[in-house]
Amino acid sequence: MKSKTVYFCAGWFTDKQNKAYEKAMEAIKNNPTVDVDNSYVPLQHQYKGLRVDEHPELLEDREWSTATYNGDRVGVQTSDIILAIYIPEEEDVGMGVELGMAKAFGKYNLIVIPDEDWGKPINLMTYGVGDHFIKLSELENYNFNRPSFNFYEGAVY
Amino acid sequence: MKSKTVYFCAGWFTDKQNKAYEKAMEAIKNNPTVDVDNSYVPLQHQYKGLRVDEHPELLEDREWSTATYNGDRVGVQTSDIILAIYIPEEEDVGMGVELGMAKAFGKYNLIVIPDEDWGKPINLMTYGVGDHFIKLSELENYNFNRPSFNFYEGAVY
Amino acid sequence: MKSKTVYFCAGWFTDKQNKAYEKAMEAIKNNPTVDVDNSYVPLQHQYKGLRVDEHPELLEDREWSTATYNGDRVGVQTSDIILAIYIPEEEDVGMGVELGMAKAFGKYNLIVIPDEDWGKPINLMTYGVGDHFIKLSELENYNFNRPSFNFYEGAVY
Amino acid sequence: MKSKTVYFCAGWFTDKQNKAYEKAMEAIKNNPTVDVDNSYVPLQHQYKGLRVDEHPELLEDREWSTATYNGDRVGVQTSDIILAIYIPEEEDVGMGVELGMAKAFGKYNLIVIPDEDWGKPINLMTYGVGDHFIKLSELENYNFNRPSFNFYEGAVY
Amino acid sequence: MKSKTVYFCAGWFTDKQNKAYEKAMEAIKNNPTVDVDNSYVPLQHQYKGLRVDEHPELLEDREWSTATYNGDRVGVQTSDIILAIYIPEEEDVGMGVELGMAKAFGKYNLIVIPDEDWGKPINLMTYGVGDHFIKLSELENYNFNRPSFNFYEGAVY
Amino acid sequence: MKSKTVYFCAGWFTDKQNKAYEKAMEAIKNNPTVDVDNSYVPLQHQYKGLRVDEHPELLEDREWSTATYNGDRVGVQTSDIILAIYIPEEEDVGMGVELGMAKAFGKYNLIVIPDEDWGKPINLMTYGVGDHFIKLSELENYNFNRPSFNFYEGAVY
Repeated sequence: MKSKTVYFCAGWFTDKQNKAYEKAMEAIKNNPTVDVDNSYVPLQHQYKGLRVDEHPELLEDREWSTATYNGDRVGVQTSDIILAIYIPEEEDVGMGVELGMAKAFGKYNLIVIPDEDWGKPINLMTYGVGDHFIKLSELENYNFNRPSFNFYEGAVY
Repeated sequence: MKSKTVYFCAGWFTDKQNKAYEKAMEAIKNNPTVDVDNSYVPLQHQYKGLRVDEHPELLEDREWSTATYNGDRVGVQTSDIILAIYIPEEEDVGMGVELGMAKAFGKYNLIVIPDEDWGKPINLMTYGVGDHFIKLSELENYNFNRPSFNFYEGAVY
Repeated sequence: MKSKTVYFCAGWFTDKQNKAYEKAMEAIKNNPTVDVDNSYVPLQHQYKGLRVDEHPELLEDREWSTATYNGDRVGVQTSDIILAIYIPEEEDVGMGVELGMAKAFGKYNLIVIPDEDWGKPINLMTYGVGDHFIKLSELENYNFNRPSFNFYEGAVY
Repeated sequence: MKSKTVYFCAGWFTDKQNKAYEKAMEAIKNNPTVDVDNSYVPLQHQYKGLRVDEHPELLEDREWSTATYNGDRVGVQTSDIILAIYIPEEEDVGMGVELGMAKAFGKYNLIVIPDEDWGKPINLMTYGVGDHFIKLSELENYNFNRPSFNFYEGAVY
Repeated sequence: MKSKTVYFCAGWFTDKQNKAYEKAMEAIKNNPTVDVDNSYVPLQHQYKGLRVDEHPELLEDREWSTATYNGDRVGVQTSDIILAIYIPEEEDVGMGVELGMAKAFGKYNLIVIPDEDWGKPINLMTYGVGDHFIKLSELENYNFNRPSFNFYEGAVY
Repeated sequence: MKSKTVYFCAGWFTDKQNKAYEKAMEAIKNNPTVDVDNSYVPLQHQYKGLRVDEHPELLEDREWSTATYNGDRVGVQTSDIILAIYIPEEEDVGMGVELGMAKAFGKYNLIVIPDEDWGKPINLMTYGVGDHFIKLSELENYNFNRPSFNFYEGAVY
């Protein structure tokens, strides 16, 4: 069976983000249409393996910033599908940049929302650049080989 | 003298955003290199003139969402320069989408940060897709006809 | 006053097309927001000034075809706005290619429909890549400096 | 053996179109370099499974139009190759939009022409955005894994 | 009269390059359709005003390289037209990158060749991404407001 | 195991180029993450199988030039990864065009430099559009399924 690579677009800063992150990661590992091994997980591509939350001195290190940004850009460009683990009440500007960039390059943006948050208001621009919206519980069985379009069934502000 | 149109990318939800919004708008009105009349201000392009913050019933109105999103997309595509009034502590996913989209279309992203916030940490992806960073007090005299590149002189997380 | 260049996208094969062509050309000459002199009119850019309808031997001339196609491509890329004079019952594949290409390059597609045809069914893909739809009688006063979005108010098949 | 997905771009309105449609569909099912299962066939992606030719009330339904257009756009973006079943005397504006959009996104446009129509005049813009032209009888053995370029061997108007 | 900005793409390393550089610069200063003041001349945008040929220590300075590259990228993106002063026997990889990038962004590539070198063999890829080819003596009177297409009248290898 | 197709971007004119060409070709044949069979090797796609170095009469043959250029363009667009065998002291404008075009289309540019030339000065624009730089001896074991970013560890002029 074919499988697709994803750019795993998710936050890892709050409890809610971490929980969704773990669940989503497990779901794609169980999904035979995702090639997890060759997917791009930003957290695994911090320049020289250093994370800014653990090494605050990197905050002002231009080489680290430039290389880590470029790593993520490469990830967006070379992955088959952008997989955004999206929490309506904790929207993130960095995820916005990745979705906008992906849209203009003609990539497919799949937005996954935790079941308990499904229907809550999301930003208008995410609504517009998202190609398909599903609940987190649907991720495990979603067929990444057959992209199609739907609207977000929820509020948009 | 030549002048450039801008996509005026700014929030209007918090006090801080409103204050920066007003200051920035005044600055570009005083800047002869900006064609304010023909610039795209999203707040003036809400579909049918209706704002979702004043008409909460629009939250679920798919026609309103689709048209307002497309209006903003058209604004990004047809403006000469993306002007983002960017508040490090109040980053916004919608602005992220606009900056990412603009980047991939080859537009010029100018990031303007209030003087009192200059140097504060900004998101890595904004750092990467920004082409030029200035303080709000510099906006009035910035020459929009001569785009160039610089790095953000501040922290990046 | 500022003015925009247009790629004048229109057929010149049937009576109806010719009539709409003439009317539209006159309208933009009267519209101070259009820079007609520097706009791209495909009929004026046939390679070496030769038209295939008058020189049928060109039908098989690869140099003529390649150069004329590239001329039109250049016209689409370098014009500010794509102006399509669109007749619902005489849709044209070449116009489709130009609109699709323009869309992906981030250009603004303005679709103008003769008043007597307004509301008639148009192709789904034109509906989707059109950014703004107006009647031919509105063309003379349309402000090309202030692009915005609307839906086609008519049938789509 | 590797296989490629295609965006199956073809009309289904006239007898001639239907006949070519069926033949082409059979050819790619016999072609081991095409992944038919995961290819995008617009007719199978009409929003909510409703076809406008069977449900004329959809002609004015903006939600149906918007979603069906976006489905086709997603299909073009996510397929490896655009496969156009092209009938010179029945050219179609929608196919034009798809080919133009695909071209600007850097996709590969394969134009397939029924044997009995090979050589007949095609539109200049199709000639220009087509990357490779073959006869319908060649489709079954065409190697989708090895894209290359050729000119249309026929008339262009 | 309207005027266009150019990205002034030229070498400044050999005598021949310097001579052509000077001539071309003078020609566009005399050409009323070029807005020289707001055009992008890479040599004037070396990061912090430092030139690598005068400061060899910059060869290994990653910040200088990254910023200077990004300056040139911004120049390509924000200029109306790419003006390449092209010497067939001294072709340059950097100019190639700029022309290729410009092509994919939908910019207009104007290739100017010194009169004494007109007709000499040029690289196939330059031939392909060039939109218009003229002699250096024609530059002064070339109308930058009316882009069109032609072939290089010379050898291609 | 998955494998990626490459656009094999390399010169074949000087001894040094030929030597690097052979080594690189052998390396990717031994690399299980490269699908050599379906990769695009420009030398194998000269129009009608004719090489301009063996048939100098082609230098002025517009059909040959146009078709061969378009073949290479198709190769860049349809390959997963651009593989440039890059010799610092023999930089090539055609390779520059291919890298620039690939960059703007969002492709991944892998630059491979012969071990003995590693660290030597390369052009600023190549530095900027390269996504990853490795030595020729590393090519055989490079994992084409896991693209990431690094800087060139050498001089840039």
